Amino acid sequence: MSIQPVLIDGIWEKASSSAKLFSVTNPKTKIKLDNQYPVSVLSDIEKALKASHKAIEELHSKSSDNIANFLESFADNINFRSEELIKTASLETSLPAEPRLRSVELPRTIDQLRQAAYAARDKSWCSATIDTKAKIRSKYASLPGPVVIFSPNNFPFAFNSCAGGDFASAIAAGNPVIAIANQSQPGTTKIFAETALMALKTSGLPQASVQMFYHLKQEDCIKLVSHPLVGATAFTGSQSFGLRLKEAADRAGKPIYLEMSSINPVIILPGALKERLEEIALEFYNSCTLGVGQFCTKPGLIILIQDEKGESFLQKTMIHFQSGMPGILLNEKVLNGLISSIGRMQQYGAKIVTGAKEVHGKGYCFSNTLLRISGEKFLNHPEELQIETFGPLSLFVFAKDFNQLKKITSLLNGNLTGTIYSHSKDLDDILYSQIEPILRKKVGRLLNDKMPTGVAVSPAMHHGGPFPSTGHPGFTSVGIPASLIRFASRECYDNVRQNRLPLELQNRNPTGRMWRFIDGKWSQKDI
Amino acid sequence: MSIQPVLIDGIWEKASSSAKLFSVTNPKTKIKLDNQYPVSVLSDIEKALKASHKAIEELHSKSSDNIANFLESFADNINFRSEELIKTASLETSLPAEPRLRSVELPRTIDQLRQAAYAARDKSWCSATIDTKAKIRSKYASLPGPVVIFSPNNFPFAFNSCAGGDFASAIAAGNPVIAIANQSQPGTTKIFAETALMALKTSGLPQASVQMFYHLKQEDCIKLVSHPLVGATAFTGSQSFGLRLKEAADRAGKPIYLEMSSINPVIILPGALKERLEEIALEFYNSCTLGVGQFCTKPGLIILIQDEKGESFLQKTMIHFQSGMPGILLNEKVLNGLISSIGRMQQYGAKIVTGAKEVHGKGYCFSNTLLRISGEKFLNHPEELQIETFGPLSLFVFAKDFNQLKKITSLLNGNLTGTIYSHSKDLDDILYSQIEPILRKKVGRLLNDKMPTGVAVSPAMHHGGPFPSTGHPGFTSVGIPASLIRFASRECYDNVRQNRLPLELQNRNPTGRMWRFIDGKWSQKDI
Repeated sequence: MSIQPVLIDGIWEKASSSAKLFSVTNPKTKIKLDNQYPVSVLSDIEKALKASHKAIEELHSKSSDNIANFLESFADNINFRSEELIKTASLETSLPAEPRLRSVELPRTIDQLRQAAYAARDKSWCSATIDTKAKIRSKYASLPGPVVIFSPNNFPFAFNSCAGGDFASAIAAGNPVIAIANQSQPGTTKIFAETALMALKTSGLPQASVQMFYHLKQEDCIKLVSHPLVGATAFTGSQSFGLRLKEAADRAGKPIYLEMSSINPVIILPGALKERLEEIALEFYNSCTLGVGQFCTKPGLIILIQDEKGESFLQKTMIHFQSGMPGILLNEKVLNGLISSIGRMQQYGAKIVTGAKEVHGKGYCFSNTLLRISGEKFLNHPEELQIETFGPLSLFVFAKDFNQLKKITSLLNGNLTGTIYSHSKDLDDILYSQIEPILRKKVGRLLNDKMPTGVAVSPAMHHGGPFPSTGHPGFTSVGIPASLIRFASRECYDNVRQNRLPLELQNRNPTGRMWRFIDGKWSQKDI
Repeated sequence: MSIQPVLIDGIWEKASSSAKLFSVTNPKTKIKLDNQYPVSVLSDIEKALKASHKAIEELHSKSSDNIANFLESFADNINFRSEELIKTASLETSLPAEPRLRSVELPRTIDQLRQAAYAARDKSWCSATIDTKAKIRSKYASLPGPVVIFSPNNFPFAFNSCAGGDFASAIAAGNPVIAIANQSQPGTTKIFAETALMALKTSGLPQASVQMFYHLKQEDCIKLVSHPLVGATAFTGSQSFGLRLKEAADRAGKPIYLEMSSINPVIILPGALKERLEEIALEFYNSCTLGVGQFCTKPGLIILIQDEKGESFLQKTMIHFQSGMPGILLNEKVLNGLISSIGRMQQYGAKIVTGAKEVHGKGYCFSNTLLRISGEKFLNHPEELQIETFGPLSLFVFAKDFNQLKKITSLLNGNLTGTIYSHSKDLDDILYSQIEPILRKKVGRLLNDKMPTGVAVSPAMHHGGPFPSTGHPGFTSVGIPASLIRFASRECYDNVRQNRLPLELQNRNPTGRMWRFIDGKWSQKDI
């Protein structure tokens, strides 16, 4: 058993002697993995904060080409160490190398870093806005402190605090990062941190641009996000902890971006079932069990009309749920979460359709599970029945008629996504036109005839949504360049001389392709 | 004495019988004005919230042309009633018709409404972003609840909750508004609300799109901004009350945009004094006493090197401050704020240079005041010496050398603006390059050789800044279209059929001139 060091100011340091230790349980075997990791204490964190501030001064003298070079060599280095990353992440999370970590999540992670590098080099992300007559020029610029990133348990690569989307965005916007590993992925995160440090060295960025800790006590996380030296925080994780962090950061006036919970309602209109019931049942099963149901966009609530077709749809779905092999969960907490959620749903009137049992064996495993409830009973306890649950579980809500379906939709909480399945021709158009405006205001991304689990990294993507799915309905954590502006301040120059302006705001377009809003027009030209 | 009604759902209603009454004291005479106004109670507010929600449903069926028409007829109506507005505002605030209310603030207010109308009609504000290949399309859209606006005491027109910049932005983004008048401007705000109601009628917008109350108890304000039916809040006012509102809104997950305090540091480098000492002294005097020093961008802190030129600059400035006639303050509270600020500054080592006396007479008046302090003493109590004070008051900080000047700058709090005066050629360039990076991260708008009090309504303007000057460094309250996105959610469509998309995201450009970000390029074309 060796105790792993933390990364502070470019040095792999032994944690403070007062740090407690933890290790990760292999979810496939329930046996502890070898390495031990420190729960870092505040004195180490403060050292990192101070080092970040020195890095900021140095970062300001670097060009965005340096930043882009870092992101690209980091991407290359990750590629180089990919098998080690896949092996470690698979041990820590039980997520399979195929068809997940190797062919999907790692390429996505590398692609995000490359997109972020492009954004840094291109500079359009900073939305340079120029009024030549009034001599006023503004743009987004990096924050006055480092970005703290907390990563979730379900994407060891693509949302990793030391390599994922938040990391790529924060760095591309010119900020140093303090990465807090997810407690169940310290080994994976350590490899990313090592890889990042190498890339920092070759690209000439200050070494304190990326620092990493494995875990902190909740009280210390709260002190960290509200610390005077922090710039902003990005958090993906549980609603209960997210809200505690939010309160602390808000009170200190520190921006915090949170992705906290989503049950991703799917409304299935009658025409869709009439037309392609079996196809949708399979799509739903695949989406609900993707990543063993541990996606923040998992469809956790299906709303449909109680009729023969609706029942038949549930039957077809049930057959898929029963015949599919349940995968291994991320950890024991997810298993316990499933058990307690099912208990709560039953308490408020839901009935088990299939599953709802722990699968006893070597690993943490739970049967694919469906529950059902009447619209009336749902309407009695809408809050209690809308709690995000990771794992292969979904709740069918059968509305007695379309009016009740509308009522149910109107009581949904804020979600990342909401989906409507409808007839491919116009059979459902009238119902769609009535339900869409209600659902629209409840969700960040509205889908048609497609399950919500895929989240493309596109400039048009919005991976965000109304509270409490996130902390603010205007920001996205996926999609470049929009995800960068979370980690930026707006900086305005009034009557400032040409040679004193940042490159992005001078008359000459610094990249020749940067988009700027000049005197009311978007343009790539010089002034 | 008549008790004035409040505006709920298009009806001028008598306030609840339990409402307490208040009236306004004419700051010029210290005599109460005739009208009495209710302090509204929560039951009335809830009625307005419910009416707003009905208005939202109706608003969604209206086009943005309707919204633009409303803003334009409102602007016309204001023009029509301008003399009445000027007379009332002048009575309530003591601000002069000339050179302020008639020729500056009213035209600005009308211009803001017209710019907002243009933005609504043009639609570019919603940043439509389209990925044709991935079939994902996003844009900003109105909030699911009304926008509550609190207005400050210092701009009865341009920042009025029922006609100013926040109002124009919230309406242009498609939201109904619940305007809370500033307690010292109920009469002015009532005229705006009457005028708005007429414009609602002629433009066909729902009448609950604009509702208005004169005043609420602080506890009720807190309940309002965190109410489940509210969309977002805009607040311009004191830091202490702003922070209370922020905490309540944040906890409820309701967006809130606050402009809370700013002392607007001005750094004067030696070359500037060598070159144009007298010119700058006059500019500073004019800026500091503009609006009787009651601008949120008033230069309240001058930082310069302690030397002969610095002393001479203070002497010249003092002469202007002594010879200028002090104006009438907005109210007794501003007067008391001046007295207590001067006391606090003296307690921490500042010395009075001139003024610091109440001018006894009919109205609330205070002599033009300058204080001075050494850099060393400032550094002992930087927090206590950085408290915004309305009125014709500024504090000179004399640094013993440039290093101390840098240290002082590094301890500044977040501000709306920061200014550097320097030699017109290159005499100060080295010092500038050292001080600018420090000041840059402390302020929203950085100025060269120009006092900060003018805030142009330009797309490139940023009237915002780091906490605690505002609540978030990425948003501006002045500058269209940027100020609109505070009152919007990002809405994404994934695989949604063409005819079900909002106009802004369909293939055809709905206005022929709307800017959209299509497949990585800004364009005004159809797809």
